[in-house]
Amino acid sequence: MIKVGIVAYGITPFTKDDQKIESVLFKSVKNLFENNPEIDRNHIDAVLVSTNNNSKYLSPILSEMVGIQPKIAHSIESLCNSGTNSIVSAYSYIASGLVDMVLVSGAERYDSPGQILEWDNSRGEFKHPIFWGSIFTKSYKREFSISDEQLALVSVKNHKQAKQNPNALSNETFTIQDVMNSKKLTDDLKLLDCSRPCTGSASILLASQEIAKKNTEMPIWITGIGQKTTSAGFTKNTSFSSMESTKLAGSTALNMANYDIKDIDVVEVHDAFSVCEPMALESLGFSKSGGGVSMIKELYETNNFKINPRGGLIGAGHPLGATGIAQTIEITQQLQSNATNRQVNNAKIGLVHNMSAAATSSTVLILEK
Amino acid sequence: MIKVGIVAYGITPFTKDDQKIESVLFKSVKNLFENNPEIDRNHIDAVLVSTNNNSKYLSPILSEMVGIQPKIAHSIESLCNSGTNSIVSAYSYIASGLVDMVLVSGAERYDSPGQILEWDNSRGEFKHPIFWGSIFTKSYKREFSISDEQLALVSVKNHKQAKQNPNALSNETFTIQDVMNSKKLTDDLKLLDCSRPCTGSASILLASQEIAKKNTEMPIWITGIGQKTTSAGFTKNTSFSSMESTKLAGSTALNMANYDIKDIDVVEVHDAFSVCEPMALESLGFSKSGGGVSMIKELYETNNFKINPRGGLIGAGHPLGATGIAQTIEITQQLQSNATNRQVNNAKIGLVHNMSAAATSSTVLILEK
Repeated sequence: MIKVGIVAYGITPFTKDDQKIESVLFKSVKNLFENNPEIDRNHIDAVLVSTNNNSKYLSPILSEMVGIQPKIAHSIESLCNSGTNSIVSAYSYIASGLVDMVLVSGAERYDSPGQILEWDNSRGEFKHPIFWGSIFTKSYKREFSISDEQLALVSVKNHKQAKQNPNALSNETFTIQDVMNSKKLTDDLKLLDCSRPCTGSASILLASQEIAKKNTEMPIWITGIGQKTTSAGFTKNTSFSSMESTKLAGSTALNMANYDIKDIDVVEVHDAFSVCEPMALESLGFSKSGGGVSMIKELYETNNFKINPRGGLIGAGHPLGATGIAQTIEITQQLQSNATNRQVNNAKIGLVHNMSAAATSSTVLILEK
Repeated sequence: MIKVGIVAYGITPFTKDDQKIESVLFKSVKNLFENNPEIDRNHIDAVLVSTNNNSKYLSPILSEMVGIQPKIAHSIESLCNSGTNSIVSAYSYIASGLVDMVLVSGAERYDSPGQILEWDNSRGEFKHPIFWGSIFTKSYKREFSISDEQLALVSVKNHKQAKQNPNALSNETFTIQDVMNSKKLTDDLKLLDCSRPCTGSASILLASQEIAKKNTEMPIWITGIGQKTTSAGFTKNTSFSSMESTKLAGSTALNMANYDIKDIDVVEVHDAFSVCEPMALESLGFSKSGGGVSMIKELYETNNFKINPRGGLIGAGHPLGATGIAQTIEITQQLQSNATNRQVNNAKIGLVHNMSAAATSSTVLILEK
């Protein structure tokens, strides 16, 4: 199979700004080309746009704005893991030999229609993600005797780490007591336990091995891919205290890359809510069931940025269609030893975990130098 | 490269019915499995949904309704050629080796938000497709001294052919005078010159060579693929009387399949408006510039269904996200000698032409037995 590498990336600050989706999309691509002036955009064969925005034909619109006439141009949507779905699609376009270089660009506005699943009748009245977030939290706390305070540390840690991420939505740090005292949304969720929708964009350029090596001195290779969709509605989940789709996607990705979870040096996990971080770590195999919170506490106390160095979704913000791409950029920067104050020591192999809708679908990517 | 074949298909009648998008999507998949009870749906690795509908997460929703837990599940949108973009994406997932079997399902409602490009500021006031349809018609008539009556024959032919398609929106035949007397929409377009949006769905199942041969006695192979996006706004077209993106996509697809246009036995072209049929035929190389109308007249007079046997978009209706898939199903049926009263004699190699937004992007597929 043709090897696929990340050649370049661009990103915008994550904000609450009211900007047109085309402008948001364009800004991360502009950032990409400004940071990599040597790349000839005429060699871009495909442009994939990752978004939940309702505007159509955004890939040709972006292409025209950027001055590209690609072969392949379309949008991809799968709620919160649209970004990694787009990266896997780009991978397959290159690995199949159809194209050599693909621009993947994700963007969202703060008022994304992917936030609240108005149309999904299988969810009854419970169309807002806080309902599944709340059920997950209650179930996890009961099953493993975990306290609200223990979970609050996820938010404390991720806001602390986001402080070192110049593009993060949050620039504040909080104590456990701050999280506990923040607005109570449900019996089990406080405001600071939640990631927040925002406006932002992230873009990466992928290429075949040959083309990647011509365009960058330090390509980062995608060596493992795992994906799984177990259902659409969260009531079909077989467990509310672990993530079945993440387990399957994680083991597939590690098998493909021929690594064990112990080999992973740096990780982006999809912390839509505080509880999601330990659950995802456990489902990926980083710790036994219920052991994720202890792992997080130890990393926090030793100032180790291994998990969600850019601050996760809780600290960095969650512009749905851009999130999976922003996660992939963070791991790329870490592996290139280019993550400034967030840098994890000696990071050689990284993992991206991106999911949708109560972990009814998950993507896991393994990246390496 | 792994060879990719069409294993099965399902389709619904094209109507003006007011049905939920999930129901529309489901019906063609149900039809697919009813017609192919031997196929084990647990072997489906990926589910791609082609639509302009604003509902999110439709691929997991469809998968759950159908009882599939795929690896890959997402929606794809590129206005009117979303369908063939999805087929090419499925092709690349299989050809890359990531998966073995992909369900591609396209659906649209009669009131699709892809019909009128409300958000596209580059179009000024001219957001409805009849504006570019009208400009194309005026330009083509002027450049090649073609009359309204000559173009009206496209509608006459395609309605006649749709009469033999049990799923077509139209069940009526018309004379040239009927087309000329139908409601005048612009200086150059009458109502019967236009394809009509409608409610409908079409699904195909693609698989690698090995899996395809296990699941059907008569797989149809996708041997040529060409795609091109020249711009988003139609004012950027270099010509209004030919289709640049179609020229490029067509030659790429023929080169990949190693055929000449003369080798093609049966064709689906994207006749969004009457003028599009001769323009597409010319841009694909079936005739010299301006010669498409004579070719169409000769085929009509000899009752030869070679071009748009199912009645094209004008006769069959145009449910945006389903159209490219329905075109591909028609060519599959033709190559399998399974097109009943529409059957073209001795069809061995077929071509699908699907485009968006004034031919600013085009897909061409070559299919063979």
